Amino acid sequence: MTVSPLSLPLRVQYQQLRDGELRAIQLAEAAATTWQSRGLHDHAYRDWNGDVALAHARAVDELLALGTDTGALMGMAVSIKDIYAVSGFETFAGSARRLGQPWETSGPLVRQLLAQLPIVMGKTHTVEFAFGGLGTNAHWGTPRNPWDTRQHRTPGGSSSGAGVSVVTGTASLALGTDTAGSVRVPASMTGVSGLKTTAGRWPTAGIVPLSSTLDTPGLLARRVDDLAFAFDGIDPGLTGLGKRVLAPPTLSSLTLGVPDRYFWDDCSPGVAEAVQQAIRQLEKAGARIVTLDIPHTNDALALFLQGGLAAAELAAFLSHELPNALDHLDPNVAARVEAAEQMSATEYLRRCRILSDLSASACDSLYQVDAVLTPTVAITPPTLMQLEPEGAYASANMAALKNTMIANFMGLCALTLPVGRDAANMPVGLQLLARPMQEPRLLAIGISIEQQLGDSVAILGEPEVPSLLS
Amino acid sequence: MTVSPLSLPLRVQYQQLRDGELRAIQLAEAAATTWQSRGLHDHAYRDWNGDVALAHARAVDELLALGTDTGALMGMAVSIKDIYAVSGFETFAGSARRLGQPWETSGPLVRQLLAQLPIVMGKTHTVEFAFGGLGTNAHWGTPRNPWDTRQHRTPGGSSSGAGVSVVTGTASLALGTDTAGSVRVPASMTGVSGLKTTAGRWPTAGIVPLSSTLDTPGLLARRVDDLAFAFDGIDPGLTGLGKRVLAPPTLSSLTLGVPDRYFWDDCSPGVAEAVQQAIRQLEKAGARIVTLDIPHTNDALALFLQGGLAAAELAAFLSHELPNALDHLDPNVAARVEAAEQMSATEYLRRCRILSDLSASACDSLYQVDAVLTPTVAITPPTLMQLEPEGAYASANMAALKNTMIANFMGLCALTLPVGRDAANMPVGLQLLARPMQEPRLLAIGISIEQQLGDSVAILGEPEVPSLLS
Repeated sequence: MTVSPLSLPLRVQYQQLRDGELRAIQLAEAAATTWQSRGLHDHAYRDWNGDVALAHARAVDELLALGTDTGALMGMAVSIKDIYAVSGFETFAGSARRLGQPWETSGPLVRQLLAQLPIVMGKTHTVEFAFGGLGTNAHWGTPRNPWDTRQHRTPGGSSSGAGVSVVTGTASLALGTDTAGSVRVPASMTGVSGLKTTAGRWPTAGIVPLSSTLDTPGLLARRVDDLAFAFDGIDPGLTGLGKRVLAPPTLSSLTLGVPDRYFWDDCSPGVAEAVQQAIRQLEKAGARIVTLDIPHTNDALALFLQGGLAAAELAAFLSHELPNALDHLDPNVAARVEAAEQMSATEYLRRCRILSDLSASACDSLYQVDAVLTPTVAITPPTLMQLEPEGAYASANMAALKNTMIANFMGLCALTLPVGRDAANMPVGLQLLARPMQEPRLLAIGISIEQQLGDSVAILGEPEVPSLLS
Repeated sequence: MTVSPLSLPLRVQYQQLRDGELRAIQLAEAAATTWQSRGLHDHAYRDWNGDVALAHARAVDELLALGTDTGALMGMAVSIKDIYAVSGFETFAGSARRLGQPWETSGPLVRQLLAQLPIVMGKTHTVEFAFGGLGTNAHWGTPRNPWDTRQHRTPGGSSSGAGVSVVTGTASLALGTDTAGSVRVPASMTGVSGLKTTAGRWPTAGIVPLSSTLDTPGLLARRVDDLAFAFDGIDPGLTGLGKRVLAPPTLSSLTLGVPDRYFWDDCSPGVAEAVQQAIRQLEKAGARIVTLDIPHTNDALALFLQGGLAAAELAAFLSHELPNALDHLDPNVAARVEAAEQMSATEYLRRCRILSDLSASACDSLYQVDAVLTPTVAITPPTLMQLEPEGAYASANMAALKNTMIANFMGLCALTLPVGRDAANMPVGLQLLARPMQEPRLLAIGISIEQQLGDSVAILGEPEVPSLLS
């Protein structure tokens, strides 16, 4: 099997595109070849851009040949979660019906990305209105986790097609969103890296809202280094901050906090072991590992189990803007939306207050370390069959999001990168948590760790070709 | 009657304090003399700082004599609404009970002000939890509007003591807060100038919250020029923006919008006339006056009549943080808080969405002009007796806030300055509305207008000494 040029580091793609060693059409054709051979099996895309993407790639190559440079991501293959409005594409947001305008006009983040002329390979599947962590969708079907070719395991969600698109090689970068873990869970479950930005850092206009308070855009890519490259290409134009990812620090200069409690509860066999092994390796390489328990994690979880803010905010959004969608919800989404319709304004505001307090105390405690390390997802990606019994979906969904939602409820930014496999041979992710707005530093630390442990290709290799197709 | 040095322009006080022509103790003593003669009658202060202020002034004079300069407001007499936490002072926020910590530790705005070493003359009265526009308070009594020495007229609220403190000469600058008009209504009713900042521009930490969404700190002073001077002394340290008030533009360079509708409805006799006369004067002096109706003002009013966000946000704050206060509310406050306790989260979020839409459309429409001019308050300050009949308070409160709440609900910044008297011989204010974060430009425009029309002293003179005291 030849290695796809889409799995080259973005920095290498960038240079080769400009040196004439690589052309955008090669990337787009490689993606198209992969999609033809396994796209229907993977089921990552709600809308594959096919020939339009190829035509686009050829035009970009003409510009590159003329020396035109439209930005860091020019010519690279990207996928966009179908929760983002992208002008020229339909938006379903995982629901049964096309949303139409205003949800089909690009917002600032997509405009900022597309102005660089990447090749948009298509729009990827999402859990309906991004409200679920496993990646299931009763309307559109659930993408397959490519690391199990025999059983249909969940790919993680809500950005359910995003991780699959990256790891199977139909995109080098995927846009996702993360309200409780919706970038990090699919990244972890599909063995790629994922960045959850701090709420408020990147605008959410042009993204169908799940939680107006906690929604955050995020990125998925093979490597932390790829995330850093893409972040540098996107962030300055959105924030005006001009902060770029610095050179990775030496591990011996880092103090990394590891919690004793909460994040290790109820791990599936092999998950905690893989993460602890990675942490030991970092310690051996000189990192200072200290115990650091983030305060009030159980309070955050209790609030999450009650629906947090998202349930009420989604219910309000749907009832005001998409009342028709309420009658056709995926049953797993509907249950939580209906429960939220009874909430009082006072209860909603009580929850806002708790989140604000949680964020303040987490931020205080994180000043003691450069980052906190935890397992990203405690559980093995379940099979669809395992989710069928009454109550199984709800409990697996909470278990999948339990470690990631802490970052959302506490106002942090976060990163995940693959560090090994669990007892079921599925990918395991290491989560890094950092204070708000520390993305450039967090990414630099993530690169250091990745350089020590090896990147996703070194750790996991490539997923097998499904036996039915080979 | 000698003119108090407190009514000198702040720029003049600043220079004279540094030239040795004026001392802080003179300002503090003049304030104390006024307070002794009429303080109990005016009833502006919940807590008069008395001898401590004098001792403070003497110490500041020693620093000034040594050439120490702690900032623009050094040595000037200020009053602070008793809704701000000020370390060393008790906080009641207009309620029957002392709130205690954390509401008695200065927040960033007060710290920024006090680090300049002004002389704090005391904490001024407020409507209970700032929830009312007339200035009444059943627990503490209502300050008297100094422009009517015979009848007890309302001073405007909720910053009910702030305007009184400035116009009677116990402070040259007053800190207030404005959630629906609580700076501009008392400024207008007591014949001084007032600035409502854009929500989010200045931090509200350390201010007892009425509406976590719409609360804004603000300033009251004799003149717009004084507001601009104080703004320049406070804003850069809080925002880091480094924007200062520019030289006032010529009137002939300005396009000023005047609405046809909404703001002129139900004006008390003489109010519209005084404002229209000021506008004609500006037009004669070269300003371009155009008709500009802000869209959706009636939608904003409808939402306001239902309690807006403040009722639910105050109810939530009280029930979570000050549950004891709920049993002892001023009846006029209690009625609206109780109604809000029934609101659903969905309804609350619907209102947030409406405000966001209102703000976007107002901002769009205001791009056509440099500022919009309206009467600040449509009604003559009512007498306490007029408020006694069933329903009279509620309807007068809404009438007083109708023109000012538009700025809050639409995310604008705003200014008021006195332009004349109504048929009851009470002050009339001209309101200027501008796009979010345009404070430096708005203040510069306000100075131009003030230079043309004359400042508050030129227009209104000084309030009479009450006959009982003279």
